[in-house]
Amino acid sequence: MKKSKRFAMFAGLLFLFSVSMDSGGPDDPLDVVREYRKSKEHEIINEFAALLSIPNVSSNRTGIRKNAEFIQKMMAERGIKARIMETAGNPVVFGELKVADAARTLMFYVHYDGQPVDPSKWTETHPFKPALRPGKLKAGKAEPEPVPFPAPGADFDEDWRIYARSASDDKAPIMAMLAALDAFNQAGIGLKNNLKFIFEGEEEAGSTNLRAFLERHKDLLECDVLFMCDGPVYYSGDPTMFFGVRGITSMEITVYGPNTSVHSGHYGNWAPNPAVRLAHLLASMRDTSGRVKIKGFYDTMVPLTDFEKGALDKVPSFDGAIKENYGFSGQESNWPSLLDAIQYPALNINGLHSGWVGTQQRTIVPPSATAAIDIRLAEGNDPGDMIQKIIAHIEDQGYHVVDHEPGHETRMAHPLIARVIRAEAGYRAHRTSMNLPVSRMAIRALEKLKDGKAAILPSLGGSLPIYLFYDALRIPVIGISIANHDNNQHRPDENIRIGHLWQGIETFAAVLMMDEE
Amino acid sequence: MKKSKRFAMFAGLLFLFSVSMDSGGPDDPLDVVREYRKSKEHEIINEFAALLSIPNVSSNRTGIRKNAEFIQKMMAERGIKARIMETAGNPVVFGELKVADAARTLMFYVHYDGQPVDPSKWTETHPFKPALRPGKLKAGKAEPEPVPFPAPGADFDEDWRIYARSASDDKAPIMAMLAALDAFNQAGIGLKNNLKFIFEGEEEAGSTNLRAFLERHKDLLECDVLFMCDGPVYYSGDPTMFFGVRGITSMEITVYGPNTSVHSGHYGNWAPNPAVRLAHLLASMRDTSGRVKIKGFYDTMVPLTDFEKGALDKVPSFDGAIKENYGFSGQESNWPSLLDAIQYPALNINGLHSGWVGTQQRTIVPPSATAAIDIRLAEGNDPGDMIQKIIAHIEDQGYHVVDHEPGHETRMAHPLIARVIRAEAGYRAHRTSMNLPVSRMAIRALEKLKDGKAAILPSLGGSLPIYLFYDALRIPVIGISIANHDNNQHRPDENIRIGHLWQGIETFAAVLMMDEE
Repeated sequence: MKKSKRFAMFAGLLFLFSVSMDSGGPDDPLDVVREYRKSKEHEIINEFAALLSIPNVSSNRTGIRKNAEFIQKMMAERGIKARIMETAGNPVVFGELKVADAARTLMFYVHYDGQPVDPSKWTETHPFKPALRPGKLKAGKAEPEPVPFPAPGADFDEDWRIYARSASDDKAPIMAMLAALDAFNQAGIGLKNNLKFIFEGEEEAGSTNLRAFLERHKDLLECDVLFMCDGPVYYSGDPTMFFGVRGITSMEITVYGPNTSVHSGHYGNWAPNPAVRLAHLLASMRDTSGRVKIKGFYDTMVPLTDFEKGALDKVPSFDGAIKENYGFSGQESNWPSLLDAIQYPALNINGLHSGWVGTQQRTIVPPSATAAIDIRLAEGNDPGDMIQKIIAHIEDQGYHVVDHEPGHETRMAHPLIARVIRAEAGYRAHRTSMNLPVSRMAIRALEKLKDGKAAILPSLGGSLPIYLFYDALRIPVIGISIANHDNNQHRPDENIRIGHLWQGIETFAAVLMMDEE
Repeated sequence: MKKSKRFAMFAGLLFLFSVSMDSGGPDDPLDVVREYRKSKEHEIINEFAALLSIPNVSSNRTGIRKNAEFIQKMMAERGIKARIMETAGNPVVFGELKVADAARTLMFYVHYDGQPVDPSKWTETHPFKPALRPGKLKAGKAEPEPVPFPAPGADFDEDWRIYARSASDDKAPIMAMLAALDAFNQAGIGLKNNLKFIFEGEEEAGSTNLRAFLERHKDLLECDVLFMCDGPVYYSGDPTMFFGVRGITSMEITVYGPNTSVHSGHYGNWAPNPAVRLAHLLASMRDTSGRVKIKGFYDTMVPLTDFEKGALDKVPSFDGAIKENYGFSGQESNWPSLLDAIQYPALNINGLHSGWVGTQQRTIVPPSATAAIDIRLAEGNDPGDMIQKIIAHIEDQGYHVVDHEPGHETRMAHPLIARVIRAEAGYRAHRTSMNLPVSRMAIRALEKLKDGKAAILPSLGGSLPIYLFYDALRIPVIGISIANHDNNQHRPDENIRIGHLWQGIETFAAVLMMDEE
């Protein structure tokens, strides 16, 4: 009980916000969009619920196809020239809206497929039968119960939520950007930018065919900036834009003792204990403040520019609330705050395994000890080079490094042996300069929404394959997130908070209309 | 294939020996015993096979009772006044053989119960249908096949083996000591010592009722020395006597990160990584040479006396062969050899667990990391005091130590938290002085067997509850082992090498007749 209360406090802190627009008058496009939304809440929610009702797990070919067709129709209704384009996997829905004398072309990436679902794990909601609940589900309870969708004209409360797979991840941006277009269409407000839309159908299955698609259709995809629309807003709940992500790679290190478990009485103190060896090896890699001690680990990263640092300084810290939520007070202390820490590469131990613990404990010297590690990469870090630096460090500790289970001859020839398994894949970080004209323009657009209150982040801590777009198209990529932070992304009971959907519509309205001052 | 070959070499190195007695003449008791055995091999093996045929898993009350009755009968046939004595669990078979003008009383402890069996895991042998095989079972093969027990008068080869549960652990000493008595009886050689026998029926079930039995029957159990007869001979294969064992206790340490797994991208570098914390904590406890860095860890142990050191120096090292067998070259280097290392207390990490590794690897910061640890104790170490020293060390590293899962308030109040679960039990080491008259007498007796070649060990590395006997009876306790080292104790295909059974008979003959020079 205590825990859920804490979480509620935390969530309240993060997601309370009031939309107060920095608007210039009755004809300000943002005012127009808000008034339009207020008058059409019922229609927007109904159309969104219809979209959410089409099963969209990546592996469901029929469902995916139905989604693509439905979205193509939604786009066509807004005057977008839309088509379904095949790949070796699920289709891409591509759309284009040309505007006379447009100064630039904006492209929007969204994915319409969703994570796998296990309906039995959802709280009295089927993932593909959207439920409107007058509030957030209480932890472990089926409350508040769903209400019928209000009659036309009735208001939706901002704290109400729609529960369904992809309500946030990642169908919400599709609905939000199309609703913004509707508002401009109805008000007869002309667009300032050419628009392109690339809606992927297999992001949750690893975007296996995305690189080939981008490279095959370079010309079609030409644009001045790509907005990657995915993920939740920053902890503040404010409109959120990010200019980069960390990259990622991973590895597994195993060190060895005897070739089988041996009796810790007969051999303890003498047979090499691999768990102790692993402890020393890992301790040599990171100090107790979280700083990585691998030689050169911080050398290749591209530091934030003064412009980016300035932007970062404006983002409020939620360190206290996050620590309260996750129940720890002793964070890694090498960086002043979470926002600083995620600008650097990280060496994370994901898991340890050796022998047995708990009721399975056996009084043995175990034969081996393994650590699973991921490395989050900053702009400038090459995945292979970072792994190589770690291997060099392991060798510097006196280890003979192999990539397979060592045989007897190897065991007898080398006192210290480490097997390193490298991830096959891994991808680079990517950071778009915040000081490009198009970046500054996007930032200004976002800051118009809430008296300048917006979360403008040089980089997220997590990883997205933004580098794919950059490699293929050589364009600036900027991220936009609209979902509430507690949307249960990738889990049962995924949801979108109505207030965040409304804020998302205004976010896209601002970005669609971005222009020189 | 290579591995089994290596093992065969190793086993050959360890167990080849030839009995060449340091005998004084045709009437030397040891010669008498050997001649007797040679003439009665068939009878000895037949009686032993009958004993091994009675199921003796501790939990099998009927089988245990049958064993006790059979053993009582075996003893009575040798003129031993034997009786079955009840405990709250399985009965003890107690026997006494009084000798006129005996200078002292020797008591022999053996256990007649055996480890649980899974007949399906045995190689074409039922654990309670003894099989005579002309050699050691080849790894993974049902070879050599059993041969019929030879006709009366036929010789048994020393390298043949009897496969059955308890063939070594621990019925072999019963057969060996009774056969030695037979030899003296037949030759009309008078005994020099009063003999007592205490044969326990639930050692493999934890000796739950032994302490109470010893304390209730102190008077009955009065003696000058207790020989604890169990376990395999030293690596050399020579007659083996040990004067001590290490004690043992254990603990589990868990350190904490966030209260749930968190995304290693969003929080890596900032959320505390418990696997890293555990690595630092464990590395602070032991250096890379195996030396424990816990304050006072080596302070309370009673060092070996010069006498014991002298004895230890005479024991040949098998470090090279053991390393070859277990496939490592880099042993813990703080002690010159295994024999030295096991004289000291040890801090063994038995297991590590945190998050996931292998195909289950997840890119998270795990919520906790756990190490299972056992502490092998040297004479003088108190189990509780040693655990307390480790807890003090953990506190010295800045940890708040708790004995339960920490709640939210604790988590927020302390940056570093370690949960320590202490073993409920644990027992002290025990070392009998090798310089007592009775010890020197026993050593001299053993050294008569093979030109002085014998393994006389101040202490084993493993743990046995010898302190129970000492606490209750305040008598010197000396261990005697006769089984071949590769007897598969506690496993399927338990066996005794015939040559080791013969050597065991001579070992007991020598000890039974021990006296002043």
